Amino acid sequence: MVARLLAPLAHGLPGALGLEDDAAVVSVPPGHDLVVTLDTLNDGVHFLFDGSSAQARDIAAKALAVNVSDLAAKGAVPHAYFLSLALPGGELPWLDSFVAGLAEAQAQFGMALSGGDTTRIGAGLSISITALGLVPAGGMVRRGGARSGDVLYVSGTIGDAVLGLELRREAAEAAALMEALSEAEVVQLLRRHLRPEPRLALASVLRQCQAAAMDVSDGLVIDLDRMCRASRTGARLMAAQVPHSAAASKVLSAGLVTRQRLMTGGDDYEILAAVPCPMTGRFEAGAAAAGIAVTAVGEMIAGGEVVVLDEALAPMTFVSRGFAHL
Amino acid sequence: MVARLLAPLAHGLPGALGLEDDAAVVSVPPGHDLVVTLDTLNDGVHFLFDGSSAQARDIAAKALAVNVSDLAAKGAVPHAYFLSLALPGGELPWLDSFVAGLAEAQAQFGMALSGGDTTRIGAGLSISITALGLVPAGGMVRRGGARSGDVLYVSGTIGDAVLGLELRREAAEAAALMEALSEAEVVQLLRRHLRPEPRLALASVLRQCQAAAMDVSDGLVIDLDRMCRASRTGARLMAAQVPHSAAASKVLSAGLVTRQRLMTGGDDYEILAAVPCPMTGRFEAGAAAAGIAVTAVGEMIAGGEVVVLDEALAPMTFVSRGFAHL
Repeated sequence: MVARLLAPLAHGLPGALGLEDDAAVVSVPPGHDLVVTLDTLNDGVHFLFDGSSAQARDIAAKALAVNVSDLAAKGAVPHAYFLSLALPGGELPWLDSFVAGLAEAQAQFGMALSGGDTTRIGAGLSISITALGLVPAGGMVRRGGARSGDVLYVSGTIGDAVLGLELRREAAEAAALMEALSEAEVVQLLRRHLRPEPRLALASVLRQCQAAAMDVSDGLVIDLDRMCRASRTGARLMAAQVPHSAAASKVLSAGLVTRQRLMTGGDDYEILAAVPCPMTGRFEAGAAAAGIAVTAVGEMIAGGEVVVLDEALAPMTFVSRGFAHL
Repeated sequence: MVARLLAPLAHGLPGALGLEDDAAVVSVPPGHDLVVTLDTLNDGVHFLFDGSSAQARDIAAKALAVNVSDLAAKGAVPHAYFLSLALPGGELPWLDSFVAGLAEAQAQFGMALSGGDTTRIGAGLSISITALGLVPAGGMVRRGGARSGDVLYVSGTIGDAVLGLELRREAAEAAALMEALSEAEVVQLLRRHLRPEPRLALASVLRQCQAAAMDVSDGLVIDLDRMCRASRTGARLMAAQVPHSAAASKVLSAGLVTRQRLMTGGDDYEILAAVPCPMTGRFEAGAAAAGIAVTAVGEMIAGGEVVVLDEALAPMTFVSRGFAHL
């Protein structure tokens, strides 16, 4: 049943062999490298599955999107993905919708299913995706390539997804947020949480500008920590320059959320990029041409320290710097 | 902690970037294709984890071995792998041994860890591995390439692993088996269950002989069904020709196991190959040179039917043809 449902997702990709073989064959065009990333989402940890078809569709689309977000940050063009789907026992009336969510997402990202494994699991639902993308040989954008003096940029807006999560999760806080926001703003925040949109249009701009980059998945601050660790640099992040949506700015002004929370909530799937100074003009122009807002939020500095400064240029402190996987 | 434990597994593979990036870069040498396979093992379904370090080591090694077995059957040389490790909460005193099991297995197979994701999961332990191998361009051995008239071969011996499983699992049956077997035979059967050895030395022979092939993981009969479905052929399998170890033959003669059970128990990780008639001499010589026993067990026939004949050439029937994933 699963094979029958999944096989259509492999259409148009000859190397997937109709999902009938033990393995897929991937031909990498001459002069290209393959970029490979893997992200896993588990019920009860990364999402709380209610068994509904609507949620199944969103979860599937998001599982692919978070992987494609990594590809975008690496400057890669999506090519194919492998799916490990560990399913609980019993009826799975939502499975068709899950597959529909994958179909929507892969069409949007220009990739196809190439293989995988479907297994039973004791409880819950676990989705692991290995995504493959292509870059010109030697062109993969690194997390560890930032240098002191680089300008730090972030795409889009930060903190919407964590507000979307709170709108769904916490009754008291959700009510206060609902009251402060318009209906359209609520829908927009929920969408940022449920259906992240990888910044694929920025991939080639990152490569051309020799940026170091990663996607913001666990929180802006913790992800910046990681970029600095990989690059053996420090960074100065100006909190007041971090871009927020009108909705997020509204609840921030109303005191319903802290700046810290917006910068550490994660699930943003925006791009964090360190761009060499001589390239910033080209980077901003490229992003504008790609239709993606980018905002300078700080700079890379010598040493290993990540300093976040508030509006008064005083160092901010954080209880948590972001989502920790374990 | 996990990153620190896992990073040494990436040594020697520059594209893994020390596991510090969001993704790995894979350079495929000119004139080669990449072969990609994914297999997932879940606690409570594929193994019953007792929390011991010894078992953690075996489980880790087996999780990699079952993927490499797929690569071997596709004619590929192992290159790298990606690991999704979903860990239950609480203390994980066995984690070092788990990593040691991976280290042993990857050294044996000549590959390194290239990336992945470590997550929390509500209960149990789930291990998903995406393995990458290399073949000369266009050279991947297909499951669906068998033709009527091809000779059907199987490597090694069939049915040891299911006996090994029974030795561990079922008290009454295990006692009867123990009584019939020498201590060395018990050890050997347990090892077949716990530490399968992919037939990597057969990979290039399969390619050179234009074989269709797959590995026997879910049971000889069900896997032959799958090869026939993918190849749009039928097959005639001679049960009396299916190779068994001395230990398996002994318990078969003693009536402690049926031929059917040995042929459907699975977990063999032997190679099932359909070799074109003019190539059989070359195939047998190549296997002998590689030090791997291969046995002709039947032939591919027209139509879509898979017939298994017993010693008296009467069709055999099966309650189960092998392990079904869902």
